[in-house]
Parts: sequence; C-alpha cells; structure tokens
Amino acid sequence: MDFELTLDKVLMHAEGVHGEQEILSCKPDGTIERYHFRDLAQRARKLAAALVEAGLKPGDRVASLMWNNSAHLEAYYAVPLAGGILHTVNVRFRPEEIAFVLNDAGSRFLIVDDNLLKLWGGAAPDCSIERIFVHAYEGEDAPEDGMESYDEFLNSANSVQLPELTDERAGATLCYTGGTTGRPKGVVYSHRALFLHALTEMSSSGFAYGVNDIVLPAVPMFHVNAWGIPYSTVMAGAKLILPGPSVSGASLLRLVEEEAVTFMAGVPTVWSNFLESLDELEEDCFMPDLRILTGGAAPHRTLIEGLDRYGIKIFQGWGMTETSGVLAVGQLKPNLGLTPESRTSVLIKQGLPLPIAQVRLVEDGSVSSDKGTRPVGAIEVRGTSVTGSYLHGLKPERWTEDGWLRTGDIGEIDEFGYLTVLEREEDLVKSGGEWIVPRDIEDVILESKWVEACAVVARPDIRWGERPVAFVVLSDDPSADWSGVKQALEARFPRYWLPDDFIPISALPYTSVGKIDRKKLKQRLLEK
Amino acid sequence: MDFELTLDKVLMHAEGVHGEQEILSCKPDGTIERYHFRDLAQRARKLAAALVEAGLKPGDRVASLMWNNSAHLEAYYAVPLAGGILHTVNVRFRPEEIAFVLNDAGSRFLIVDDNLLKLWGGAAPDCSIERIFVHAYEGEDAPEDGMESYDEFLNSANSVQLPELTDERAGATLCYTGGTTGRPKGVVYSHRALFLHALTEMSSSGFAYGVNDIVLPAVPMFHVNAWGIPYSTVMAGAKLILPGPSVSGASLLRLVEEEAVTFMAGVPTVWSNFLESLDELEEDCFMPDLRILTGGAAPHRTLIEGLDRYGIKIFQGWGMTETSGVLAVGQLKPNLGLTPESRTSVLIKQGLPLPIAQVRLVEDGSVSSDKGTRPVGAIEVRGTSVTGSYLHGLKPERWTEDGWLRTGDIGEIDEFGYLTVLEREEDLVKSGGEWIVPRDIEDVILESKWVEACAVVARPDIRWGERPVAFVVLSDDPSADWSGVKQALEARFPRYWLPDDFIPISALPYTSVGKIDRKKLKQRLLEK
Repeated sequence: MDFELTLDKVLMHAEGVHGEQEILSCKPDGTIERYHFRDLAQRARKLAAALVEAGLKPGDRVASLMWNNSAHLEAYYAVPLAGGILHTVNVRFRPEEIAFVLNDAGSRFLIVDDNLLKLWGGAAPDCSIERIFVHAYEGEDAPEDGMESYDEFLNSANSVQLPELTDERAGATLCYTGGTTGRPKGVVYSHRALFLHALTEMSSSGFAYGVNDIVLPAVPMFHVNAWGIPYSTVMAGAKLILPGPSVSGASLLRLVEEEAVTFMAGVPTVWSNFLESLDELEEDCFMPDLRILTGGAAPHRTLIEGLDRYGIKIFQGWGMTETSGVLAVGQLKPNLGLTPESRTSVLIKQGLPLPIAQVRLVEDGSVSSDKGTRPVGAIEVRGTSVTGSYLHGLKPERWTEDGWLRTGDIGEIDEFGYLTVLEREEDLVKSGGEWIVPRDIEDVILESKWVEACAVVARPDIRWGERPVAFVVLSDDPSADWSGVKQALEARFPRYWLPDDFIPISALPYTSVGKIDRKKLKQRLLEK
Repeated sequence: MDFELTLDKVLMHAEGVHGEQEILSCKPDGTIERYHFRDLAQRARKLAAALVEAGLKPGDRVASLMWNNSAHLEAYYAVPLAGGILHTVNVRFRPEEIAFVLNDAGSRFLIVDDNLLKLWGGAAPDCSIERIFVHAYEGEDAPEDGMESYDEFLNSANSVQLPELTDERAGATLCYTGGTTGRPKGVVYSHRALFLHALTEMSSSGFAYGVNDIVLPAVPMFHVNAWGIPYSTVMAGAKLILPGPSVSGASLLRLVEEEAVTFMAGVPTVWSNFLESLDELEEDCFMPDLRILTGGAAPHRTLIEGLDRYGIKIFQGWGMTETSGVLAVGQLKPNLGLTPESRTSVLIKQGLPLPIAQVRLVEDGSVSSDKGTRPVGAIEVRGTSVTGSYLHGLKPERWTEDGWLRTGDIGEIDEFGYLTVLEREEDLVKSGGEWIVPRDIEDVILESKWVEACAVVARPDIRWGERPVAFVVLSDDPSADWSGVKQALEARFPRYWLPDDFIPISALPYTSVGKIDRKKLKQRLLEK
C-alpha cells in the first residue's frame, strides 16, 4: 500500500491519538503558556493554509528566526504541510551570516520573534524577504512598518484546503552547518528523513520516550531541528516543554522541579551549568526519574559523575547537521558487566549506531570491518536520515563514490559496537607520523581543580610535522600546581604526547554552535 | 540519501551493534540451544547464499513448515536476503489447505521441521516442490529419500555473494489469511512494511522493548510473522527466546522463571492456560517485570484481572494478516485518571493506532471523524504496513477507491483515541434494525463460574431478521444456576439483547488460527 512518510501524518496522529496531551511554552519573562496537541494541529493547519493562500509553492522556503516556543513549533509543522521548506536560522549567527544563509536559501517569507527584531535589523538591508511575520513573544502584537502580525496572518486563511503530500522524499526543513570550515552550507531534510528519525528516536535504541514522559529540548530549535525532538515527542505523545530563550541552570532547574521533567536534551555546557545549580541547592535532592541527553560535543567524565550523584542518568547522542539529528545513541547494554567506573567509560563513548543508519571506519582507503580488532579510521556514515548532498551541490567530495558521507571525524568501534569519535580529522595532531588525540590530553589536564577549560591544538613543527600545544584557562585558586598536571600527563601518555607549551588564556573562543573554535587557536599560534 | 529499508540492514545492524546478544531456541524435548545474533547473521547469510546458488530468483517463494525455532528464524532473514519471499505455512492447516497454499503461492523450495514430516506427507502428493530441506529438530540429521539436510544445504554455498537489495517495496515474506471466509488468501509483506513495523514495535507506542528485555513470542512464526517480533527484537537487540512447539502454561512458566522473561506475546487462550499454571503454584509469586501482549482475539476482563494479581501487565495488540502484525496497541496513558476498575475497561479496548497507520470509521458511506462523539462505524485502515492487495489480486473490493483497507470489523473510537473492535461485521446480530454485540453478552455470561466458554451468534428470524442465541460449554459444577445468568443479563442489557436460547455444547469449534468458528455454529443452528 502506498502510504508516504510525510509530516502531515505525524500531526494527524498526534491530534487523533494524543489530542489531549499538553505543550508548555515559556515566554521570555518565564511565564508559561499551556495548550494541547489538538490546538497545535489546528493552528498549524491554519498557518499552512495561510501560507498556501499567500502564494507559497511546493519547495519554497519560509525562514524562522525564533526561540524554542509554540509559534516555532507551529512553523515546524505548518511549512512542510503547506508543501514548503522551513529554514530555521541560527540566532547566534552574526547579521552578515544571517543575510548570507537567507539569500543562499532564497527564503521568501520570514517568521521572527519580536525580541529578535534587533538582530534581524542588522541583516535586513542585505536580504530580500517578501513578507515578514512578527510573533508577539515578548511584547504586544504591534508589528513595525513593513511587517505583519504572525497571529493575524495565521488566522487569515479562508479555507484550510492543503496540498496532498505525495512524495516522502520532498524537502521539509532546511538547516545550515555551523561553518567552522568555510561558509555555512545548507542541508535539506526530507519528510522521510524526519519521519524515520522521529520514529527511531521514540524507539528503545533512541530516546525511548512516550506518553509518560515530559520532555524539554534545551537544544535550540534552530540547531538541526532541535535534534528532531519536536517531531519525535509529538509522534510519541510525550508532553513537551519549550523553554524559550533561557536555558540557564536556574531556569532549567525550576522547570524540572515544577513540571516534573523526565527528559532533557542539550549541549554539555548547559548541563555543566545545570549541575552547578544543583550543587548550589541547600537541600538534598535526588532525581532518578530524570534522563539527560547530551550532544554537540563530548561530555567530560566529571559531568557524567556529577549528575550521577543526583541519580540523573546522562547519555550521549552523536550526530551532525548532515544526519538530521542523532545517528548514534549511548545506551548501556546489560551484558557489559559494568562497575561504576567502567560505566562512565562506556558513557563517554558516542554510542551505538541507530537501526536506520550504518557506520564504517576507513583507513588508507580500506574499510575496517573486523569489529574484533577495535579498528580506528575515518568515520563514514549512511542512513535514511543522512543527507546525500548540500544545497546547490556544494562540496560533492564529502560523499564517497559508493554513497557514504565522510564525516571528517576519526573514530573507533569497540567489540560491543560502541562508536567513539576520537577527534575531527583536522583537529588531531600528527607528530612524527603518529596520531595524538587532543581530547584525551585535555581530559587529564581538566582533572586539575585549578584549570577551568583547556584546548590542545597542533602547532606546525619543522622536525615533527606537528606538535601539541595546550591553551589553558586558569581558575583563581592560588594553589595552582603546574608540576602536578605534567606528572599526571607523564603517567598516562607516551612522552611524545606531552604538550610542548602551556599557554594561559583568559577564555577559549567558541563557534556559533558552541564548539571550541580550534581554528582560531591555531591561527593565534601562527601569529605569535 | 538513498538508503532503502531492507531486511539485510536489520541483520547487519544486529550483527554490528548487538552481535553478542543471545537467542535461545527450545527443542521439542525442552532442551535449549543457545547462540548469538552474530551466529544468526552468519548462518542466515550462508543459507541465503545457498539459495542463490540453488537458483532462487528475485521474488521466488521458499516455504517453511516449522515451529518457533532458530532454523525458522534463519529462514526469516535468509530468504529475503537472497531476494526471495518466505512463505510461512500454518502447521494447523489441514493437508489439503497446505497443498492449496503451496500451489497458490507457487513455492519452489520447502524447509520443514522433521517432526512435521508426517503433516507434510499428507500434502506432498498434491504439491510440486522442487527441493525439500529437512531441519533436524527432534531427531538426527537423516533426511528421507528425495529430501535433503537443512544444515548440509546451509553449509553448501561456495561464496556468500548476495544480491544487493535495492527496492524496499519488493516482497520479503508471505502469509495466508486464516480462511474463515472462503479460501485462504495470500498477503505479501514488503521489506519496507516489515522494517517499519519492526521499528514501530520497538518504539514507545509499540512494545518498547530493547537491550534489557528478554522476549518470548508464544505466537507461532507462521501467524503473520509472529506479529513481527522476530524482526523487531533482532533490530532492538533484545534477547529472544523461541519456545518451540509447546506453549502450554507449564512450559511457559518454566521459561519465565528460569530465563527471567520480561515480554511474551500470544493469543488469549495461551494466557488463560498460563494463568491457570500460576494459580496452581504452591508458593506466592509476583512478576512485576513481566509484560504480556495479547492479540488475535479480545481478552476477557477476568484474564486481565487474573494476571494483574501477579503484578503482570497485560495489554493488547490489534491487527490482521493484512496489516503485517499490529496496527493498534493498548498502551495506557497517564492522563486518564484511572481507578483499578476503569483501568481494565481501557485495557479491554484494542488500543491506540500506531504512528505508521491510520484508522477511520465509516457509516453509511461517510467518515465519522468527529472524535468527540464516540462514533461507531466500519473500521477502515491504511498505513505503511497495510497490504494494498491480495496475491493474484483477489477480492479487490476489500479496498476502497481512495486506498483504505476495509477490515470487515465494526468499531468505535473514544475521545482519547482508543479503538474498540465491537465485532466482525458478519458476527454482529441485527435484530429489528438494531445492532446487538455478541461479545458484550458473552462477557456477562462468562462471569458465571459454571460456564467455561460461550459464543453468541445470530439465528435467522422471520419476525426480527436475526435473533441472538448462546452456545454454552458448562463446567462440572453441580451448583449451576441458569436463573442467575439470566438475571445478570437482564440487569445489564435491553430486553431485545437477551438470547432466545441457551444451547449446551461440549466444546466450541475453533478455526485454524484459534478463533471461535462462528460460521460453524451458525450452520449448526440451520441444521437443527
């Protein structure tokens, strides 16, 4: 039977089977709007109808410049329902980057939160957006000249006749890569990719959440569709909490306590802040019903162990902009015979590939497929939710001839199938022909209480090709002890792994998606 | 990216990610064979290669006449991997039915358990199977004349070069309907249908099992692919226990206790027997970690409540041969405000439609879509795993013009989205233009301790069109009290619902798939 995997079906399912389930949307001032899946379905269909009446054609782009809130969720469904492609714009981009991606995508319409209008103002002169709809998120519904009210537009459609979605491989959303390597590149996600990604997220190999869960995506909805959570929760019938602009430790802790959150997702920095807020609590607390998904960067052992003290289960999801969200999830198998220590060692691995994806490691052109020998190699992936190209066909060399995506990461797979991402290919240090893994060195340096942050990068070296150098953010602790750190490193690594220099720095540079900007650090070394 | 949903990927995933997970296969004498997912993968590939070398062409049928055991599981993967279609033959069919379906399907090869050779002997003269492979299940590996050893065949392939599976819509397995209405009709399941069904089963809307589960399908592997469990467990990395021919209460209880089973699936009769075995235990037992999926027929309230006394959670899956397995699952939502009594009332409903399917109710040609009004109508379904036709295009009238399957059941959907199947359209009684629901009457009659089984069917009536009549299997209890039953019925139903006759019968007739054969009972009424 022909039954295409399109997002309208997710919404119909949510309405018919989970219509009474709640969505909570936080405003910038912390107040909470509450509505239900059936309201979402109705409003999304209205917005879709208004877009069709406004002349949206199949495949046309509608951009959003928005926080995690209910209007953004409506756009997540409405634009694909109208046959269009939702282009979620990263609010952490600089105005010129925003202008670049809007023009590159050719986005016709824009929905913008009113508290992001200033940011938009910086990009606007260089863009040609046909119509701008302002979501009254912080203030009143009073759009500026040349803009329109989001709510009025949503309610403007005369009919709700929507196009039938007949091709699951048609585009539904669009997101740009972070751009640590050159200009941002667009990735279009198809209905099929998003549907299957959502179904897999609600599976036991994914996040396994369902009607009993209360899910809070702290990852922004402009990052790879918030890793697919706005689709998988609605498909699963889980209660959804959209936290708005603030994901500080304190505001997340308030929501967790007041709304009995059972699942959160976000980057490690968010969880470090959350842990700090927990540590500052005056009363003891224990949260065995809370699970935390961390992604975007590898978490440090101390974070995992810190949350474990509160009974909170943290696990990893690994993926890229190019994979529609997660591709591997760090679930613990019962057969591993784990102790508390070795448990953490499994949790810092990136996890098990999902059933809709495949991972292989390639070294010197040949696939390391023998799982028994813990092969190391360049990670290549494919799957239903891995993109086959960038927008405008950029960088075709990212894909192999036999159709796999070259992730640019180096990894290993252990005998139980767990993938570890060792480093970006370009972030590894190759000294005298041997690989050095900066993250392993950083982990040891970070065990010192007087180091707040650090990054190890490659410095060109005439003799060895490259040598590792450590940038270190020091704490104010006067008991600072260099020699202890060096001893710890010597005890753990071969001599050639030890950094040639430790360079104090006031703060590490970060990219717009919150990763350490190693490129900038390398440039600093060259400028020195 | 092109990444077809084919079963070879399920096997590769199981091998790479869950290779160390165990499969237990019970022999007829109760001994248990243990092996691992990676062994399954290797053996299935060998068998597939042997089939290709034996001349199997894409789409060719290979039949199995087998119990729930490891060789059957190998065939589940090997035949589709070889590009063929596995035709699982119901061992409860009569020899002439077996011959009919084998000929109808045009099956070229047959794999048969040695303890089913006698059954096969009855069908063989009317079939033209090219090669017969005997699985040494009960006895020695000593095939009769004209037959071959399954294991020798499996190990015979020189290479393991398998065809690339490039079309997810190609057929993978084949099962015949039970044939309560005319001759059995073939349903071909595509790779896509089975893959998506498996992924949905391991989701929170399905059975939600994963690496921590130990799953025992008591439903035969010749019934709609054992409701998809041999695919979804292997995809999920759950430990799998194949119980062999015996699913008696005692043998299941032994496996549950010895192997710490967390999930079982089968028809209500199996669970009634299991409950009886529990009741006969001398020691108290409590099994809060055991979940039971029941399907194939609606369970009675007493069964749900009986298992509940042991802490066992029982829930329903509803589906048909035509839906690749389950289409709705009876998961409990947290928002229903349930008491212990009302909990059972939700559990006897058939459940919530899965995200890969849609259900609608049709009455007098129009769709009852307003969920608020608890509409009743003919159940029509569609979805990724619903078949679009029977083999040879039989009975095209089962599908509507807009592509939905007419299930032939009458149902209702409540405000929370739960589907209740009231009755087969043909099993309802229409008296004086009003519908009477036999199952509701049976439920009340069964509350009497001296009734062991009963079935209410329609008897033609000149005045009313049809009138209900009850067939009753009495227990040996001398305190039998007719009037009590009649009073209970009068207290619950309008007068016109009360059966005109109560006819004692020594045992109810059942169909080959374990359902009450109401057709036969109706014929008896006409013969009287």
